[in-house]
Amino acid sequence: MSLESEFISRIHFNDKGLVPAITQDFETKAVLMLAWMNEQAVRQTVESGFATYFSRSRNKIWVKGEESGNSQQLVSIQADCDSDTLLLLVKQQGPACHTGNVTCFFEQGIAFGNEEMESNQ
Amino acid sequence: MSLESEFISRIHFNDKGLVPAITQDFETKAVLMLAWMNEQAVRQTVESGFATYFSRSRNKIWVKGEESGNSQQLVSIQADCDSDTLLLLVKQQGPACHTGNVTCFFEQGIAFGNEEMESNQ
Repeated sequence: MSLESEFISRIHFNDKGLVPAITQDFETKAVLMLAWMNEQAVRQTVESGFATYFSRSRNKIWVKGEESGNSQQLVSIQADCDSDTLLLLVKQQGPACHTGNVTCFFEQGIAFGNEEMESNQ
Repeated sequence: MSLESEFISRIHFNDKGLVPAITQDFETKAVLMLAWMNEQAVRQTVESGFATYFSRSRNKIWVKGEESGNSQQLVSIQADCDSDTLLLLVKQQGPACHTGNVTCFFEQGIAFGNEEMESNQ
């Protein structure tokens, strides 16, 4: 079995045949997005070297950047300890987020005061 | 409404009442793990400042490190552009993975030859 087929055979897809994929910028280490892959998307990703996902809303395979040009060239793809999540390290062309932001995680969210707490100790 | 309640009210939980949470090491930027949270887990996380997940296999709330000591002190928590994924930046105590590895992404996976390709150009 090829390295690619062996890699794919070990992945635990969920009851909908999907696995979550975390995509991280190889250079900045920023987490760019989370998207989903079915088996075909994983296969296309490892064979093409470009991140390819499965759109749950459009119910079809989706090559990242195919329309926008904001493609993701793979540096590596790994499964986690229980093989139900993937991590992609990529070279991101342009912004990863459809909003035009570098990453899909651009909202401020909630910050905790650890830094201040530490400097006070 | 408090900042915490407003944050939680905007999250899109899936049909099982869960949202995937990516946890990243604040210092090294390593992606440590992906786990799931229900609304109560998100609330406990933002109120306690320590990552708290929902175990799908055990069907219960799970404070990371409660038994192992390998807790995750929050630096920040953010939702992504469509509010269906969370990103936690944490100060990780000890290894994040139950296998004793620093991160759950320790398998070699597949590496692509981008670096070599680039240096050859």
